[in-house]
Amino acid sequence: MTKGRTGNSKFLKAYNETGILDLIRMKQAVSRAELSKETGLSPTAIGAIVSSLMEKEYIHEIGTGESSGGRKPVLLELKPGSWYSVGLDIEVDTVQYVLMDITGQVLHEGSVPLRVNTPEMTVMASEACVRQMMRKFSIRKERLLGVGISVPGIVDSKSRRVVLAPNIGWEDADPAGMLESEIGLPVYIENEAMASAICENWIGSCQTAGNFVCLNIRSGIGAGIFTGGMPYRGTSGSAGEVGHLVVDENGPRCGCGNRGCLETLASTGSIVEKARRLARKGLVSNLKKVENFDGITLEDIADAARAGDAAVISLLEDAARYIGIALSYIINTLNPSRIVLGKDFTVYGDLVLDTLRKIIDARALKRPASNVEIVISQLGERASTLGAAIIPLKKLFGR
Amino acid sequence: MTKGRTGNSKFLKAYNETGILDLIRMKQAVSRAELSKETGLSPTAIGAIVSSLMEKEYIHEIGTGESSGGRKPVLLELKPGSWYSVGLDIEVDTVQYVLMDITGQVLHEGSVPLRVNTPEMTVMASEACVRQMMRKFSIRKERLLGVGISVPGIVDSKSRRVVLAPNIGWEDADPAGMLESEIGLPVYIENEAMASAICENWIGSCQTAGNFVCLNIRSGIGAGIFTGGMPYRGTSGSAGEVGHLVVDENGPRCGCGNRGCLETLASTGSIVEKARRLARKGLVSNLKKVENFDGITLEDIADAARAGDAAVISLLEDAARYIGIALSYIINTLNPSRIVLGKDFTVYGDLVLDTLRKIIDARALKRPASNVEIVISQLGERASTLGAAIIPLKKLFGR
Repeated sequence: MTKGRTGNSKFLKAYNETGILDLIRMKQAVSRAELSKETGLSPTAIGAIVSSLMEKEYIHEIGTGESSGGRKPVLLELKPGSWYSVGLDIEVDTVQYVLMDITGQVLHEGSVPLRVNTPEMTVMASEACVRQMMRKFSIRKERLLGVGISVPGIVDSKSRRVVLAPNIGWEDADPAGMLESEIGLPVYIENEAMASAICENWIGSCQTAGNFVCLNIRSGIGAGIFTGGMPYRGTSGSAGEVGHLVVDENGPRCGCGNRGCLETLASTGSIVEKARRLARKGLVSNLKKVENFDGITLEDIADAARAGDAAVISLLEDAARYIGIALSYIINTLNPSRIVLGKDFTVYGDLVLDTLRKIIDARALKRPASNVEIVISQLGERASTLGAAIIPLKKLFGR
Repeated sequence: MTKGRTGNSKFLKAYNETGILDLIRMKQAVSRAELSKETGLSPTAIGAIVSSLMEKEYIHEIGTGESSGGRKPVLLELKPGSWYSVGLDIEVDTVQYVLMDITGQVLHEGSVPLRVNTPEMTVMASEACVRQMMRKFSIRKERLLGVGISVPGIVDSKSRRVVLAPNIGWEDADPAGMLESEIGLPVYIENEAMASAICENWIGSCQTAGNFVCLNIRSGIGAGIFTGGMPYRGTSGSAGEVGHLVVDENGPRCGCGNRGCLETLASTGSIVEKARRLARKGLVSNLKKVENFDGITLEDIADAARAGDAAVISLLEDAARYIGIALSYIINTLNPSRIVLGKDFTVYGDLVLDTLRKIIDARALKRPASNVEIVISQLGERASTLGAAIIPLKKLFGR
């Protein structure tokens, strides 16, 4: 019985430490007295927990806060540059990386090219990348909380395996397990849209939203879904695979076997391909400037649209209409409070957001449509890399 | 500080009582020793909690269980016929009712016709219905845990108001508040598809499913969604309004303004209307027997299909195909482990389930499609009425 009690009290202490650490994170700067008031724990208990957290260098004391009289209280906050996390985002031909500290501050970021994207090669590049950052910033291994990986595919959260990632050609791969055994640190893995959603929820525009959807548009289209403030991954990790919602029954044939899937009509690849065809036919004055039509990028297309090219604007609006149709299905089904459009959509989203909103107002039911905000991600391309780095932090804070 | 401590320990005691009560419910028959082992609470603490629960007549002792030697332990279970709950399901022209005891046993059920369905008239009929059952079964008000109402419309779970229920013509109504002030007991309210989902989760086919969807097909079509084992209602209570997913862009105009919404092609009304048209044209041999074509019911249609009438079978299969298309959207988006098709679908579902499954396998992505079971509700029409009665029980068990 004594043994059980000790176990229990140790558990409670760890629980309380994690809880207090998370409270300090949320309050940003907070006194011991406030922590005691907020949690109902005695000043003595708070004092002991705070000492332990300071000893571990998760937090430190800063200046003084406001006081209603008497001695001004010392404030506590997360200690910058003390504990770290790495985020990696695997794309078709690059690995994006970011080094973050416990406060969410980005210390370093960049990307490494991948000549061949196999799980083995990518894990090798990732390992080199992590080790390089550790050297560069003199980070001891004990101070690295872990590594988060974001992949454009379906992840089985129990086994951590990448079940299927068609755009990078992976099937049943275990990059998290491989990297973990190389670097001897905890490695986590998430679908890239879910990584973006985790980022929006932690430091972005969905910190207070309980039910929201991050729609990422790139070579594929996928959604990261939060319900009740928690990531929703579905029964086998494939929730949010909305790139295959049918938005035009007579549309082009998709790799999945159906016609008119959202991906065939609104992915970056489909937009670029259509623009190239228009340019070859000489129908797009502003794109003529690009010497090699095959080299036309989404940025060129957005530039041409901004310069007023009607054919290009119409092309982007068509894509936005299809996105709007798919979102109206998602809105009717999930009634989210917010939808964040991310990745490549941030390149041209401002040009077509009104069109997209109009489609939603026409297509979705009135009540859920009037209760949803549609916004463009402020984090742009970086959301999933940042989100990957946030996963090890979330574990520390018991989230 | 002493006061705070007392409050805290009272809270803990109530929490423990609720937890132990729920454990006894789940274990069905359990000894004090098992409860102690399962929870880590001391035999003394368990003894005190069990005494308190027995005093309140939530539980009682029954015979003896298995023992590995020595005295056979007394088992505890929920006490039948001690505490009650009422469920009401409001339809277009009837109120279905059910009287349930704490064990989930149905003691009485039936329906009362509604000549005029306004919130006021329906609340009056509901009140009469509750009072009549209390008299008939000599149930004291103190022993009625509450009343649950199921409505075919959008419910705001914070205000308990029915925001919109087009099929019964209600808008911004407060039947729960009205009934509560009449009978002086807690009254809860849910959308009918969510009430069905609650029922499937409590006593039906989704007791172990965390992520599932109950699709109810009647005059309208709606879904009750569970994510992570909890009801998911969305941001403003309209999650699951999937009757307006577009399943045929060139389909008939819907009241919502779009074309080809699921409801226009697969609701009971649309099926019956099509069958009547076929019958008038003399195209359906078996339906000729029904003298007045306007009187053809869904049951007549299912009978004709069972008798082998090809035109009627094809009509039902068309409806199933549209349901399959909508479900493929839901499956791609939510990746549920189970979908339960309920209400009127139970009348003819066995005839078309294969067709529906084929559409899903063709239309949804392979992984979520292969991970979802599609079943017909075993509870038929009663699921939402039973679910309504379960709501007050869930509160008692802290669920």
